[in-house]
Amino acid sequence: MNYALGVDLGGTNIKIGLANEKGKILFKDSLPTESQLGTKEVIEKIKKLIKNSLKFAQRRKIKIKGLGLGSPGLVNYREGIIVGGAENIPGWTDIPLKKILEKEFNFPCQIDNDVNLASWGEFTFGAGRGSNNCLCITLGTGIGGGIIIERKLYHGSFNFAGEIGHLTINYEGARCNCGGWGCLEAYAGQQAIVERTKTAIRKGFSTTILKRVKNNLGKITPKIISEEAKKGDLLSKIIIEETGRYIGAALAGVANLLNPEIIIIGGGIAQAGEILFTPIRNSLKRYALTLASQKLRITSTQLGQESGILGGCSRVFELF
Amino acid sequence: MNYALGVDLGGTNIKIGLANEKGKILFKDSLPTESQLGTKEVIEKIKKLIKNSLKFAQRRKIKIKGLGLGSPGLVNYREGIIVGGAENIPGWTDIPLKKILEKEFNFPCQIDNDVNLASWGEFTFGAGRGSNNCLCITLGTGIGGGIIIERKLYHGSFNFAGEIGHLTINYEGARCNCGGWGCLEAYAGQQAIVERTKTAIRKGFSTTILKRVKNNLGKITPKIISEEAKKGDLLSKIIIEETGRYIGAALAGVANLLNPEIIIIGGGIAQAGEILFTPIRNSLKRYALTLASQKLRITSTQLGQESGILGGCSRVFELF
Repeated sequence: MNYALGVDLGGTNIKIGLANEKGKILFKDSLPTESQLGTKEVIEKIKKLIKNSLKFAQRRKIKIKGLGLGSPGLVNYREGIIVGGAENIPGWTDIPLKKILEKEFNFPCQIDNDVNLASWGEFTFGAGRGSNNCLCITLGTGIGGGIIIERKLYHGSFNFAGEIGHLTINYEGARCNCGGWGCLEAYAGQQAIVERTKTAIRKGFSTTILKRVKNNLGKITPKIISEEAKKGDLLSKIIIEETGRYIGAALAGVANLLNPEIIIIGGGIAQAGEILFTPIRNSLKRYALTLASQKLRITSTQLGQESGILGGCSRVFELF
Repeated sequence: MNYALGVDLGGTNIKIGLANEKGKILFKDSLPTESQLGTKEVIEKIKKLIKNSLKFAQRRKIKIKGLGLGSPGLVNYREGIIVGGAENIPGWTDIPLKKILEKEFNFPCQIDNDVNLASWGEFTFGAGRGSNNCLCITLGTGIGGGIIIERKLYHGSFNFAGEIGHLTINYEGARCNCGGWGCLEAYAGQQAIVERTKTAIRKGFSTTILKRVKNNLGKITPKIISEEAKKGDLLSKIIIEETGRYIGAALAGVANLLNPEIIIIGGGIAQAGEILFTPIRNSLKRYALTLASQKLRITSTQLGQESGILGGCSRVFELF
């Protein structure tokens, strides 16, 4: 049996996992990434987590085949360099992370974008198992995506593929944080969802959200909206249904263009479950070509918080 | 040197070409496809064209390695079966064309969708040469597309990939012929372009188009609009610029999602040249992420009417 390490570098913590080829995690560890943590500290924390894992491996007489690490932002995966764009880690730019880690540890390291590795995890060990063409989307502050084409992780020509959050769903639409207009994220990203809710409340919609946040609208989050929707709050349900409609319209475009057999949806508001998934499926059917949508499965992630770690390990088994 | 036959089954005629591995066409022939031509007659015409080509090959002592044929509609390219959906050929459904042709001729045949093969032609012998990830779009009555991913023709899980004409660019938008809403085709397809022009004329816009069609609005075509735009007609220029804006918004989505290095645009209104391409590029920049658009090339097709034939030949060299 082969063993690998997977590292998931996130906004709130760095997670590591040691897993076998079957996707079973034998050891896990994590360290917090306080905001404004510098580049050096982040690298030191990664090294520390690796060392902890290696101690475990040594005790169990396990040989590590390699390491896969997912980082936010733009990553040159061929050379293992962090290019930049990770908002939560200041200065996380032009870092030859593969070289740094391979110098210290005697196994090969694969560096990639975090959403790509999480998608690869779902494809190999989660909801996408057995498919050929698969799209994963993560609903969060932003909306990210990873694409698997003919059983291979697809990066595009400039390592930037998968930005489904910036698919234009309304060319006349709202300005997006990316600088574009009418992107899916401008309708179904965290900020858009919360703003729509606040506006409705200010217009006088009655909702259980108000009690939940003790009338402090600044405390509204997609998680709260999801939870209130599940409890039956009408406004929350409307907001989530609208969000589902936007996501479905974007996914219809993807279905018509890429014709995948499965689309896997995870992240914050996806926890709303069928309240979100039903309008997504209805909207997709409304906008997509029948032949592109009739056999397409829309499903939730299976690996939860471990998709990144498992994706990192799985890349090692694939590549090295 | 290897030689192959390429067949392009179109709405107005069936074309055949015999080309070598370098993409040089040594022999060409075609037969008209009168409207309402039955299935049997279409197959007979294809066979006749193949026989004519084989006579030429025999005279030149050329051995044919195989044949690639592009058909409109949905094609099961793995088994070489026409599934259906070709509007111009009634009954062109469930036809095991590969089997039929291979029974009669002693070389392997590859059957695929016509836009896919034309895209493959542009990729191997035309504007896409040397790229890794490439999208071709054809502007015509409908808007079709072909996708090349990591130097391979991409079909999707249900043989339906590339339908960029049915990418939603406005979820609140106009009904599309496909049954969906707000598709690119509903804004930049032939019908939409002509209708926008007619509406403007009826509202009193002065234009040289009127003289050109002798006041018969029914005679307006995208070709006429393109030509009048090139001569400086303001309304025609506005119509083409708007069309470019819609196409650019859709291509921005594709750039953000797939991150190709080149997008090749051909078909009817693409002949307008820079009057169309400049607004496409501007719109793309407006809607797309900088990292996805800055190195992306938007260019016109190079092979013109021969892309389908050459794509068919090229598939033979790749596969057999």
